[in-house]
Amino acid sequence: MTADNQQERLNPHWITGFIDGEGCFMIQINKNHKMKTGYQILPEFRLVQHIRDRKLLEKIAKYFGFGVVRKNSSRVKTTLEWRVRGRRDLKNLCDHLTKYPLRTKKLLDFLKFRTVLKMMDNCPDITKIRNIKSTMNKGSQI
Amino acid sequence: MTADNQQERLNPHWITGFIDGEGCFMIQINKNHKMKTGYQILPEFRLVQHIRDRKLLEKIAKYFGFGVVRKNSSRVKTTLEWRVRGRRDLKNLCDHLTKYPLRTKKLLDFLKFRTVLKMMDNCPDITKIRNIKSTMNKGSQI
Repeated sequence: MTADNQQERLNPHWITGFIDGEGCFMIQINKNHKMKTGYQILPEFRLVQHIRDRKLLEKIAKYFGFGVVRKNSSRVKTTLEWRVRGRRDLKNLCDHLTKYPLRTKKLLDFLKFRTVLKMMDNCPDITKIRNIKSTMNKGSQI
Repeated sequence: MTADNQQERLNPHWITGFIDGEGCFMIQINKNHKMKTGYQILPEFRLVQHIRDRKLLEKIAKYFGFGVVRKNSSRVKTTLEWRVRGRRDLKNLCDHLTKYPLRTKKLLDFLKFRTVLKMMDNCPDITKIRNIKSTMNKGSQI
């Protein structure tokens, strides 16, 4: 067994475990007069790793068939991220995490994230989305 | 699906994925005149999480049948850790990670850790162990 023995297909449970550890679900809300609601909603998923694991991030991107591996926007220059933004891609990621559920309380953030994605299928209520967003990634118990 | 829906048995691949994200292999070397070599070697594995995931850490401890869930020794008061110290327990953990291999470069730290554990079966060469320890958890590529 070597460190580069990564030819074997990734196991879906492994992926969920890794996301339980390292994944992050985010919602950005930006003012945008071109949008009907006056706001642009940007849901995003990120999985950040040290640059030494670039190949693994690329393997995850290949497994799903979407998302980009890119430099992380933080000041730390030694990190990369697998980033997923497209709504169809995010829904596919949600399908994976519905089939292979998260086990940490990150599950709560995921459920909120999935709710927002569904709300975006219709003309979304910005206030409701803002409220949901305000409770995400806070380490809340409920 | 609820956040507390954790009755289902943990999947071994999920556990490895979670360790890929959150686990840490450590070797402490302390002077101890009672030991034949003059040093005590303390291998240790830690998996640190926010206190909100206490139940999950306990579930992991139960899955393996060893290790303790306890307050983390860091200054951060909101974290807990699943800690494994006993050599027999650590070897069992190594067996799991040999059967369900890590996919990140953390694998390299694991392989070094497993080597040190094996060395401890005989009268260990402290210099060699010190050299191995010095290359661990550095984000090294090799």
